[in-house]
Amino acid sequence: MKYVLGIDIGGTSVKIGLFYDNGELIDKGEMKTRKEDGGAHILSDIRDFFEEILVDKSLTRDLFLGAGVGVPGPVKSEGIVQGCVNLGWDIKDIKQELEELLGIEVKVANDANIAALGEAWKGSGSNNMVMVTLGTGVGGGIVIDSRIVNGFDGLGGEIGHMTVNRKEDTPCNCGRCGCLEQYTSATGIVNMSKKYLANSQKDSKLREIENITAKDIFDLAKEGDELAIDIVDEFGDILGFALSQIASICNPEVFVIGGGVSKAGEFLIDSIRKHYVKNAFHKSKETQFTIASLGNDAGIYGGARLILQ
Amino acid sequence: MKYVLGIDIGGTSVKIGLFYDNGELIDKGEMKTRKEDGGAHILSDIRDFFEEILVDKSLTRDLFLGAGVGVPGPVKSEGIVQGCVNLGWDIKDIKQELEELLGIEVKVANDANIAALGEAWKGSGSNNMVMVTLGTGVGGGIVIDSRIVNGFDGLGGEIGHMTVNRKEDTPCNCGRCGCLEQYTSATGIVNMSKKYLANSQKDSKLREIENITAKDIFDLAKEGDELAIDIVDEFGDILGFALSQIASICNPEVFVIGGGVSKAGEFLIDSIRKHYVKNAFHKSKETQFTIASLGNDAGIYGGARLILQ
Repeated sequence: MKYVLGIDIGGTSVKIGLFYDNGELIDKGEMKTRKEDGGAHILSDIRDFFEEILVDKSLTRDLFLGAGVGVPGPVKSEGIVQGCVNLGWDIKDIKQELEELLGIEVKVANDANIAALGEAWKGSGSNNMVMVTLGTGVGGGIVIDSRIVNGFDGLGGEIGHMTVNRKEDTPCNCGRCGCLEQYTSATGIVNMSKKYLANSQKDSKLREIENITAKDIFDLAKEGDELAIDIVDEFGDILGFALSQIASICNPEVFVIGGGVSKAGEFLIDSIRKHYVKNAFHKSKETQFTIASLGNDAGIYGGARLILQ
Repeated sequence: MKYVLGIDIGGTSVKIGLFYDNGELIDKGEMKTRKEDGGAHILSDIRDFFEEILVDKSLTRDLFLGAGVGVPGPVKSEGIVQGCVNLGWDIKDIKQELEELLGIEVKVANDANIAALGEAWKGSGSNNMVMVTLGTGVGGGIVIDSRIVNGFDGLGGEIGHMTVNRKEDTPCNCGRCGCLEQYTSATGIVNMSKKYLANSQKDSKLREIENITAKDIFDLAKEGDELAIDIVDEFGDILGFALSQIASICNPEVFVIGGGVSKAGEFLIDSIRKHYVKNAFHKSKETQFTIASLGNDAGIYGGARLILQ
């Protein structure tokens, strides 16, 4: 039996999974991401963690097929990270550095893309899928014929920065205006709700909440609160339309919705699909929607898959 | 030395290329597409053509690695055509039927996708590219990491049916409204020009032409005709914006522009890129634009590549 590591480097923690080469997860662990000194300790911390695994499990390096690593930034297909603001990294050849530190083969990809690959392999996805992560921002990952659509600069799947409103004048974090993320992230929905509350005369329980969250909006919409329903409907219109555009381009079998907002479940999917179907082309009207199932483990699964495929 | 066939089945003619397995084109031929009887003779005509090649070149079947075939309709990845209105075909297992007729391995893909693969391999493209064909309609093909993005139902690269105007009420050929094809195909630009001529007071040489063509509009814009410049600018805005959306999704290295309208050359590219750059995300602003170079041979090259990759 051979082994594989799946490593998910995030802004808060680094998650590491140990897998058999048949894809079974044996054990997983987590450590704090040390961002001081421009993130200079992150890779050596991973080496130390790997050496502990070798001792704990009585394994040797030659039993490892490799390590698949997700990082929070764009990655060129040859494994060179194009900068990770969250980690303090500039352009960095993670593949080479980590191969020297670990002594095993390393493959690197963007974290959202790796998570999509994990869902495609062991989660709710399929070999042809688009994952949409609705969290603080909107992330995405595209897997076609079992492979990540990485793109030339590693920007494949950056669907949060599709422009959905050319008339917007409030800028997105990226500096441009009208990105999908500005309306359909957890933050975006809350911002939309503020506009609705200011411009509408409708009575709503949202008016009684001091710090509205995305969860409040979806919960109240489920209970029948009319203003909350209007907000969710606009959310669904914007996201459903954007996904119909993606379907015209890469025609996935399934859209997998993940991230904190996805906890709204089938109600969320219904709100998106209603508008998706109106806008989708031809057979892509039948594309399925599902909620992600691997949660925070999607990244380590995707990392392992990167080596095993 | 082994051999490969590249076959491009179009609504008017079937093109067949004979290649060495190093990718060199040895000879090519063309025959009329017989559409009578629901396109029942097309595949047997191809068999007859292949048998003539075998006799003419003194070759035998066992010297052939296979035939890659492009068809004008969506194709599931296992080679089943999902209907080709132009040929009279309903759902049809072309791979199996043609393998039985030719006695060699067959792979099948959509014609626009095959043309993109041909440009990626031997034309103006690269291993990460999106091809946009501006003809009677707007076609597209996406090649990422040297492979066609086929999609689950074979609709990958159907960029002509991205919705670029949600307020349009004139329907596209597909039945939906506001598709990219309605504005940026050869027909679409001419339709736009009619609206400009009706709504503008500007003097223009376009007013002197009875049956305006896309070429007239680009030619007059190059000469400085203000109204023609306005039309080309709107064309560039619509197409440049749509391509910026595609870049957020699959981040190609290069956009290859083909089809009849592409004869307008660098002037056309400048009109698209100007608007593209305004809307594109991050590093994808630097994505290159180029004119397709293989013309009508792109399909046979792509077919050969499908077998040789």
